[in-house]
Amino acid sequence: MDLNRYDVVVIGSGPGGFTAAVRAVQLGAKVAIIEKSLIGGTCLNCGCLPTKFLWHVLKLRQKIQKSYKYGFKVNLEPIVFSNILVEKDKNIANLRKGMRMILASYNVDVIEGVASFRDRNNLMVSNYERNSILEIFANKIIIASGTSPSAMKGFVFDDNRIINSTCALNLEKIPRNMLIVGGGVVGVEMATIFSGFGCRITLAENESCLLPNEDREVSEEIKKNLTKQGVDVLVSCFDALNDINKYEKVLIATGRIPNNNLKLERAGIKTIGKGFVETNEFCQTNVSNIYAVGDIAGKSLLAYTAQSEGAIAAKNAVKMNSISANNFVVPQVVFSMPQSSSVKVSNFLEYRDIIYGKFPFTASGRAFIENERCGFVKCAVDKASKKPLAFWIVGAYSDELINVASQIIKSDIYYMSRESIFHPSFSENLFNAYEDAFDRCVELVKK
Amino acid sequence: MDLNRYDVVVIGSGPGGFTAAVRAVQLGAKVAIIEKSLIGGTCLNCGCLPTKFLWHVLKLRQKIQKSYKYGFKVNLEPIVFSNILVEKDKNIANLRKGMRMILASYNVDVIEGVASFRDRNNLMVSNYERNSILEIFANKIIIASGTSPSAMKGFVFDDNRIINSTCALNLEKIPRNMLIVGGGVVGVEMATIFSGFGCRITLAENESCLLPNEDREVSEEIKKNLTKQGVDVLVSCFDALNDINKYEKVLIATGRIPNNNLKLERAGIKTIGKGFVETNEFCQTNVSNIYAVGDIAGKSLLAYTAQSEGAIAAKNAVKMNSISANNFVVPQVVFSMPQSSSVKVSNFLEYRDIIYGKFPFTASGRAFIENERCGFVKCAVDKASKKPLAFWIVGAYSDELINVASQIIKSDIYYMSRESIFHPSFSENLFNAYEDAFDRCVELVKK
Repeated sequence: MDLNRYDVVVIGSGPGGFTAAVRAVQLGAKVAIIEKSLIGGTCLNCGCLPTKFLWHVLKLRQKIQKSYKYGFKVNLEPIVFSNILVEKDKNIANLRKGMRMILASYNVDVIEGVASFRDRNNLMVSNYERNSILEIFANKIIIASGTSPSAMKGFVFDDNRIINSTCALNLEKIPRNMLIVGGGVVGVEMATIFSGFGCRITLAENESCLLPNEDREVSEEIKKNLTKQGVDVLVSCFDALNDINKYEKVLIATGRIPNNNLKLERAGIKTIGKGFVETNEFCQTNVSNIYAVGDIAGKSLLAYTAQSEGAIAAKNAVKMNSISANNFVVPQVVFSMPQSSSVKVSNFLEYRDIIYGKFPFTASGRAFIENERCGFVKCAVDKASKKPLAFWIVGAYSDELINVASQIIKSDIYYMSRESIFHPSFSENLFNAYEDAFDRCVELVKK
Repeated sequence: MDLNRYDVVVIGSGPGGFTAAVRAVQLGAKVAIIEKSLIGGTCLNCGCLPTKFLWHVLKLRQKIQKSYKYGFKVNLEPIVFSNILVEKDKNIANLRKGMRMILASYNVDVIEGVASFRDRNNLMVSNYERNSILEIFANKIIIASGTSPSAMKGFVFDDNRIINSTCALNLEKIPRNMLIVGGGVVGVEMATIFSGFGCRITLAENESCLLPNEDREVSEEIKKNLTKQGVDVLVSCFDALNDINKYEKVLIATGRIPNNNLKLERAGIKTIGKGFVETNEFCQTNVSNIYAVGDIAGKSLLAYTAQSEGAIAAKNAVKMNSISANNFVVPQVVFSMPQSSSVKVSNFLEYRDIIYGKFPFTASGRAFIENERCGFVKCAVDKASKKPLAFWIVGAYSDELINVASQIIKSDIYYMSRESIFHPSFSENLFNAYEDAFDRCVELVKK
């Protein structure tokens, strides 16, 4: 048997590619995965995990600083950021090791190098370190090559002064001040983290509010909290880059571009928009044996949708197009301080008669005793059927609470019932917001 | 209008009574609530909230002690337990104030004193402090008088040496050692808290495992963690009380008895079992204008089922029996360290062909970076339909995660889909345990 022939070859080992590779083996395929950099892709190495690590450290420091409220006497020495980075890198390396172990246990061949197409079945993998080129044949190919931070016209990332989020997560010391351009998820998270660690942050967004796709009330709450934390938030700001000499660092967080330099044209693969690979509901490209999942397909740039698509593509590649990816209910989370999140039914805009409820964390017993009194839950309900249609949460643990909301939203639940939510918990706040939509929340004073 | 005539009178202001009172006003009734002690009942004053407060403080101390893993240098002075109690009491008093404000905003008359029936419509309220007796007439009565810790034969609570959980939560200093009799929820929580604060605990249970109604694997994990924490766990133990002189304190946590000294017989109200008030699916007693909710009805001694029943009873009392309480999906939570929880479909025992999956917290990226690597999720799935039937969780945040599970269990969801759960979160562990039931979890090495 030819060592370089595979049933399925996956390009990229981020959440989408990794899931696709393992699932394809589970379904009986011989599989290789090609990775040009580190196993785990953006999510593990310069996205979800490192961000949450730093956010967690910040939150932990905040908890320690506020622990006097419980009668604690604590002396916390000033934090050395480089020590935290060492710990971050250790943690991430360990998780990478775990992924490698899983791939090995499934006999997935990990091929290190840069992939490019020769045709619809043949790939070349160049490894510049080893100065080698490997040719491989694949019956089916799953592209999961991801995206990279996009630069701005006239500004080149120099990994020194003009930086992107990847570079920011590896800064050896906290800059005195930093301009962050772009008030989307990445901009807000970077502002939260670096401002938390003592950097004077200016956050500039050219739309009229932060997170322009979010609910306005949520966006205002995030702005309020960032401002309280000491961040200069500039909205409707078009001239932030006019005077960048004021800043020690300039972080561009205005979006991501597809990693599509794979010589896709040689296989005849169609791209759309900024160069994302076009796919149908089976995660299949216009070339029938080639699939694409995650960021590179441009549908939503999230690790968990990538994982979902990875599993779907693997099944369709191995077992003929048998499952499709549609009608997604996908929560969105932003690690502001406190966290913020939302989820909606997919046909939200079709509802005409919506009532809203709101419940502040100050009114929650559990939030009160844990001294996590900042934030609220907002709930949209279809007035006629009483079905919960959407939840927005700003507040502690909202990255977990939103998963409660997701399950409600995607189910047939036409009412929320009290006994199914533990007391005292933060999740109760969802129920109370729902009840408030009918003006019957018993945990709020009468309006 | 007679000041002492009400549409609805509620006896007891715990979660069940409080909810019933507010809801009855919302539905148009004139309402009074009778409270013999503190507003908020067991839950707020000597149950859920104070326990979680102390557990939270313990957890916070643990986090501070382990913060060196993130490069922190912290000096934490020894904790003075009495200072923590002061903070606990401040927090609880504030929450009580909040409940009073809500009752006041709804014009609920709060009558302080001990209630007893004269007949099915007339109550007497004795206030011993004021040396007064008030007679009130109620069209409908909702009994929400709760339960109290039960003593054991031959042992009387003396609030000094032989104590119950209420007394334990107000101990001014941590005893050198303590025997806890009863390895149910209360026993495990008290053992966790007091051992955490430095008391040498012996926990004795006469069944063959802790939490005998729990899944055996969960019970073993809790025992393992308590033992690691330094608790002497004795199971199948019948002679713990033979030699109580060894202990500074003896905490009896063997169950609760109904607060039924209300002269129920004068109204002809039927009781069952240990003296709980019998109710039908409308939360109605055998006397048609009298309802009973929460602990006193003995169905489940939980704050959130009490709240649910409170709302149901209020509606049925005001609007004729219009809604019933059945087919409950109710999560169970124990504040061990880490927390433990479970939830099942109500007809779990009817399923014949069940497959199980398990996912350890060590394999969770988020748990890994938060250094919360202890515990697991176990999932039961109906093999034929793929419907998730039950979840058991031991691990950080399981008191919130179980609410995700509850919503899945009570809905029509016949599969779990990856994209509906945020990454990286602890909630993913539920999905991964579900996938493991089919031997297809991509986050675990091949078996």
